[in-house]
Amino acid sequence: MVTRRKLLGLGAAGAAVLGAGAVAGRSVLDDPPQAHASSTADPVPFYGEHQAGIVTPAQDRLHFTAFDVITDDRAELVELLQEWTAAAARLTQGKEAGSFGAVGGAPEAAPDDTGEALGLPASGLTLTIGFGASLFDERFGLAAKRPAQLAPLPKFPGERLDPAISGGDLCVQACAHDPQVAVHAIRNLARIGFGRVSVRWSQLGFGRTSSTSRNQVTPRNLMGFKDGTNNLKLEDAALLNDQLWAAAGDGSPWMAGGSYLVTRKIRMMVETWDRTSLAEQEQIFGRTKGEGAPLGGKAEFDELDFAAKGPDGKPYISDVAHVRLAHPSSHGGARLLRRGYNFVDGSDGLGRLDAGLFFIAYQRDPRRQFVPIQLSLARHDVLNEYIQHVSSGLFACPPGVRDAGDYWGRTLFEG
Amino acid sequence: MVTRRKLLGLGAAGAAVLGAGAVAGRSVLDDPPQAHASSTADPVPFYGEHQAGIVTPAQDRLHFTAFDVITDDRAELVELLQEWTAAAARLTQGKEAGSFGAVGGAPEAAPDDTGEALGLPASGLTLTIGFGASLFDERFGLAAKRPAQLAPLPKFPGERLDPAISGGDLCVQACAHDPQVAVHAIRNLARIGFGRVSVRWSQLGFGRTSSTSRNQVTPRNLMGFKDGTNNLKLEDAALLNDQLWAAAGDGSPWMAGGSYLVTRKIRMMVETWDRTSLAEQEQIFGRTKGEGAPLGGKAEFDELDFAAKGPDGKPYISDVAHVRLAHPSSHGGARLLRRGYNFVDGSDGLGRLDAGLFFIAYQRDPRRQFVPIQLSLARHDVLNEYIQHVSSGLFACPPGVRDAGDYWGRTLFEG
Repeated sequence: MVTRRKLLGLGAAGAAVLGAGAVAGRSVLDDPPQAHASSTADPVPFYGEHQAGIVTPAQDRLHFTAFDVITDDRAELVELLQEWTAAAARLTQGKEAGSFGAVGGAPEAAPDDTGEALGLPASGLTLTIGFGASLFDERFGLAAKRPAQLAPLPKFPGERLDPAISGGDLCVQACAHDPQVAVHAIRNLARIGFGRVSVRWSQLGFGRTSSTSRNQVTPRNLMGFKDGTNNLKLEDAALLNDQLWAAAGDGSPWMAGGSYLVTRKIRMMVETWDRTSLAEQEQIFGRTKGEGAPLGGKAEFDELDFAAKGPDGKPYISDVAHVRLAHPSSHGGARLLRRGYNFVDGSDGLGRLDAGLFFIAYQRDPRRQFVPIQLSLARHDVLNEYIQHVSSGLFACPPGVRDAGDYWGRTLFEG
Repeated sequence: MVTRRKLLGLGAAGAAVLGAGAVAGRSVLDDPPQAHASSTADPVPFYGEHQAGIVTPAQDRLHFTAFDVITDDRAELVELLQEWTAAAARLTQGKEAGSFGAVGGAPEAAPDDTGEALGLPASGLTLTIGFGASLFDERFGLAAKRPAQLAPLPKFPGERLDPAISGGDLCVQACAHDPQVAVHAIRNLARIGFGRVSVRWSQLGFGRTSSTSRNQVTPRNLMGFKDGTNNLKLEDAALLNDQLWAAAGDGSPWMAGGSYLVTRKIRMMVETWDRTSLAEQEQIFGRTKGEGAPLGGKAEFDELDFAAKGPDGKPYISDVAHVRLAHPSSHGGARLLRRGYNFVDGSDGLGRLDAGLFFIAYQRDPRRQFVPIQLSLARHDVLNEYIQHVSSGLFACPPGVRDAGDYWGRTLFEG
């Protein structure tokens, strides 16, 4: 277990050493990277071919933030991305955002780190960056590099998007097993970005609503159903190459090894849902609520058999059941890697909880994956009586940072 | 570890047994109560002299909700409290809100429980009820029983309270180590209350900002400082009787064994705070940021020495340092049992995180405890430049439920 062990407040109060074995000024990069987090306290490696936080087994907590870039200076933007990368390399390994205490040891300066995660372990923190379509406008000379995969999403029937909580030039997805660690990371990135970026919107989530590994139990969404049984998982190597990772030949070579991210904040009318009969709930999803088995089947991971008919001669899984509408067989094999989170944002002023699902899906090309699947759902899914999409985001998440000399987005700016 | 083990969806999909050793229809009350939760997964006993969730070692997550009663019928209110009590006795022990599946086994009915916590352990869930002053109006014949301790709080300098997220006839504090478990509990109580109560406001929190036991590490608030070093703790038996628990002679015998709860949502201007020098931050609090030691001292639990002077002849801890203004010695020994939580509610539309502290304090009499302490802080604390109180609540939390024949508020309605 790695804990934050830096000196803090040395000048003001004497040497206050946090934790045994602390070494003043020790760099995070001295620590050998660990191949896999062995407990929820451990760090997840930051460097690699792909960004962490995509196929990483989904952590339990989320702080997702979209930023607008408020400088028009390309060099300042690159500098910010370099500073963010250095901070992310530290934060994800359970260290502070910068060398702590006061800059240069002077108590007259503001600390490099905001401090609220001192003493907390790395907690599986991953930080994943994405670039929105608006970043590719005239400001930074990136228009020619805008991936075709960032084509605007169509207007889906029934959605009611709030622009104030949609879009953004940049996004950072922070996932961790401790919300204080995720919040600390976002806050320190925002602080580093002062004068160059502004927080556009921000969403906390809990209770991951999909598994991204076969070693994880399938969690439940706030409708009470298991969610993500047939999700793409990190063990599906061939499928990941086919469905998840962008390739050099996909039109934007700088994105090779990256992935495209769609976010949708989906408000659930939980009070209405909770007054719906169990049989109707199960018909709408096409699965049982308890076990999560396909209707007509017995166990959660039973194959979906859309042809199977019940004693009444009708298909167990109706033509408009959620699992049928969303199934790869209905969309030429198209699949998503989902890693969404439940949210409750207080109440809505009408006596109801403001709750739902913050949907997060990674894919190789939203035009062939999210868009057709969601069009089908938006048109036919009975679930639409109980949900509403209220925010939307679409981001190009670049490949991973290779080593300490690399930075988030280098292939975009230097490629 | 107790997990939810009820049958679900029996009629619709065959016997789907969750977990080994499940017994259909088994009552939670068959399980012997456990004296103490031995891990964060375990249940906390529900029955007792005092309500759980006050001196219970503070769990990591919060869902606090205030309700308005929308019936004027006293009998309906009592019935609701009885139903809530029965549900709370089950939920806190890791069971569903009611016998699950469909009522009477019929899939045509809505399930008794919303299902999203199926398979999750009890997670230390506590549910603590409180009665606001507005409950003692003319509707329910309770005016004569209104405790003098529920006198309206004065207007504090600098506060900017939003009535929409303040007050309420009833409150329920749900604390757990898993937010999904806390959210599930509140949602099911709201569902049971349909037509009788309406959610007035609701707040999620994480990263408890005080310890309530000497066995807990002092956590940090979002200013990065340890919070609650000198908090009242469950081991302080004599102080708890003097400062925390209402007594029969306090004017409202029905409250004996209960306690008075003050909630304050305190927004922090974290971006401004983060640009303040370490020395100034430490002067404002009167403690070091790293170790949490009193200025002039060495270790977190060193006694505060307000007379000690530094080499410059000035007190180490200034006259307006937060720890001095809030200290019991400045208020005739008055103390609070705090168990607040950090919150981040997204962003504020101005590029800033909407973050801060949801302050929760239990006490025997707010007129002698919270009010003078907060008046002193509101008038003199330099911290006010960085914070603003935006919501307020004051509730009488009745004594504990003794056994399965008792219910929340019985001493109020039947005493």
